[in-house]
Amino acid sequence: MQKVFRLPLLLLFAAMFLMTACSTAAVNGGRGALTLKDQGSFAVGGEVITAPGTYTPYTTAPEGQTYHGDHAYVFYQIPENARKLPMVMWHGFGQFSKTWESTPDGREGYQNIFLRRGFGVYVLDQPRRGNSGRTIEAAPISTAPNEQFWFNMFRVGVWPDFYPGVQFAQTPEAIDQYFRQMTPDTGPIDINVNSDAVDALFNKIGDGILITHSHSGGMGWETVLKSPKIRAVASYEPGSNFIFPEGEVPEPVKSEFGDLKPASVPLSEFMKLTRIPIVIYYGDNIPDEPSKDLGKDQWRIRLIMARKWAEAVNRHGGDATVVHLPEVGVYGNTHFPFSDTNNLEVADLLSAWLHEKGLD
Amino acid sequence: MQKVFRLPLLLLFAAMFLMTACSTAAVNGGRGALTLKDQGSFAVGGEVITAPGTYTPYTTAPEGQTYHGDHAYVFYQIPENARKLPMVMWHGFGQFSKTWESTPDGREGYQNIFLRRGFGVYVLDQPRRGNSGRTIEAAPISTAPNEQFWFNMFRVGVWPDFYPGVQFAQTPEAIDQYFRQMTPDTGPIDINVNSDAVDALFNKIGDGILITHSHSGGMGWETVLKSPKIRAVASYEPGSNFIFPEGEVPEPVKSEFGDLKPASVPLSEFMKLTRIPIVIYYGDNIPDEPSKDLGKDQWRIRLIMARKWAEAVNRHGGDATVVHLPEVGVYGNTHFPFSDTNNLEVADLLSAWLHEKGLD
Repeated sequence: MQKVFRLPLLLLFAAMFLMTACSTAAVNGGRGALTLKDQGSFAVGGEVITAPGTYTPYTTAPEGQTYHGDHAYVFYQIPENARKLPMVMWHGFGQFSKTWESTPDGREGYQNIFLRRGFGVYVLDQPRRGNSGRTIEAAPISTAPNEQFWFNMFRVGVWPDFYPGVQFAQTPEAIDQYFRQMTPDTGPIDINVNSDAVDALFNKIGDGILITHSHSGGMGWETVLKSPKIRAVASYEPGSNFIFPEGEVPEPVKSEFGDLKPASVPLSEFMKLTRIPIVIYYGDNIPDEPSKDLGKDQWRIRLIMARKWAEAVNRHGGDATVVHLPEVGVYGNTHFPFSDTNNLEVADLLSAWLHEKGLD
Repeated sequence: MQKVFRLPLLLLFAAMFLMTACSTAAVNGGRGALTLKDQGSFAVGGEVITAPGTYTPYTTAPEGQTYHGDHAYVFYQIPENARKLPMVMWHGFGQFSKTWESTPDGREGYQNIFLRRGFGVYVLDQPRRGNSGRTIEAAPISTAPNEQFWFNMFRVGVWPDFYPGVQFAQTPEAIDQYFRQMTPDTGPIDINVNSDAVDALFNKIGDGILITHSHSGGMGWETVLKSPKIRAVASYEPGSNFIFPEGEVPEPVKSEFGDLKPASVPLSEFMKLTRIPIVIYYGDNIPDEPSKDLGKDQWRIRLIMARKWAEAVNRHGGDATVVHLPEVGVYGNTHFPFSDTNNLEVADLLSAWLHEKGLD
């Protein structure tokens, strides 16, 4: 009998130790030595424009001069004894690599968390955003105040109120940092340009796991169609461009704030999405029924569409899972589960999924 | 006699060991484990605009909404057992944090080099550039081809020719990466906005060493006037805003490509520049006499002005040194000595200077 009880007791001690370690980590921001084998940055993908004519030395006239643009800027870190597959982390709409770095309240984000868990981590800025601002096609920079809209849209609450139990540090400093992690586009958002650059990144680094968020979710599916080197996708709250096979496209999902329309590709293209494991996570405060709250309703229709999409992938032999976090007992998450105050718990779910799929 | 010779011999062995270590590092890109105590990112400084009116939930109308902008984005890394003073690295015109990261040919830049030498390293994007794109005031994004102009201006050569012996990897890949490390401004360059943000950074992190390049050289002097926490400045090829005391302002330095004018402040302000050690480095291919080569002549007049400026600082009891690299036997450097192919040698000079000043 003693032997039978020993294992649970050991597990209990292990769990207590982990909980202590985690809560200590949460308090001090998860600090502790981080040993890297290598780190650096590079530009990848993009185009080169050459103005017609001949360059006249010492002038600024464009004739005969080049312009390199539409690349993705990538910062990478490889830990000692890294796991085989690195992670490529791709931000969402209005955001840049900061998404994955320090959280608004200064804790560790996915960059550090997964480095500590042994993964090489590549954080990128998509073309025409952040450090990849050198766009081939310019767009006007908007400075229109819009942060309360995004506070609501990102399900932190309904400004100026936070949702009850929301996993977001409710300090002025955290809100200030959160708003400052947005940055404008220097050119029009172009799914093709963006997925080309991320395809080029995987061509450079080889097989890896793609982590997407919101707008990059849909661009991520597009990139999977281009790159056989993407071995898995974990997508946090994908927001658009759910790609169905032609002839199997569902009706738009209706919302008073605007319907969500699916996209379509030939079945042969769609089949590429069935060859890798895919997991999709959505956070809390996403109701089953239509809501008058923009944030709630916009993500309600996306969760519905994501489920239809996963069904389509699985119907064709794929392996797509949609996890609505409250259904697995994880509550209070905003549109940014990976940087919410419970992000270590959210990361644990991803780690468990990667382990289950043999990707770690 | 034996004892007298022993020390030089030991020094010789030490020098040989260092040279071997450095050249090995240069060959393999300086790779090897890098142990960090901490890393992360944050926004610092900046303003908040609030549009008049009341926010109507779920609309994008600006009324009552906020806009946070004009901050600097900062990525920091602190090695284990860090030296007391960290380094803050500030890029130049048209550039961003990439300046200090991997070099165009993929070797280690100052970020890694000085992390390995035990310094905390903060790389920043100045407001309205790169990851700090969220500008309060918008400017049109230029996509005019201009890279041959910059190739010449940055003294890599006279396009399409490289200067003989230039410390730049002459491969298409390196040139491609070099051009892609430029990124546009999202708003007008504002010395006051930029120096305010860097002042705010030093207020947050405490005493440190400021490393500037080109355009940030002059903005760096401005920041020293604001921040008593800047304990030293190392400036690579500062390009403008040489600040003299009122009444001691020299004549502009003449060039057929445009004269270089000094700036002025009251003596009491200028005196702040005399309270810290300052070192200024200029690379190779800067002639004593006027040149028909834009790159050569533009930096000729800046080197002249820098020397006048250092004389003024020292005349008032300061400690400013101008190092023209070829005069200390370091040849072939472009406008980017810290990322040139001999950047470990260039870094050694900075390390020696910091040591001499008791800053390491």
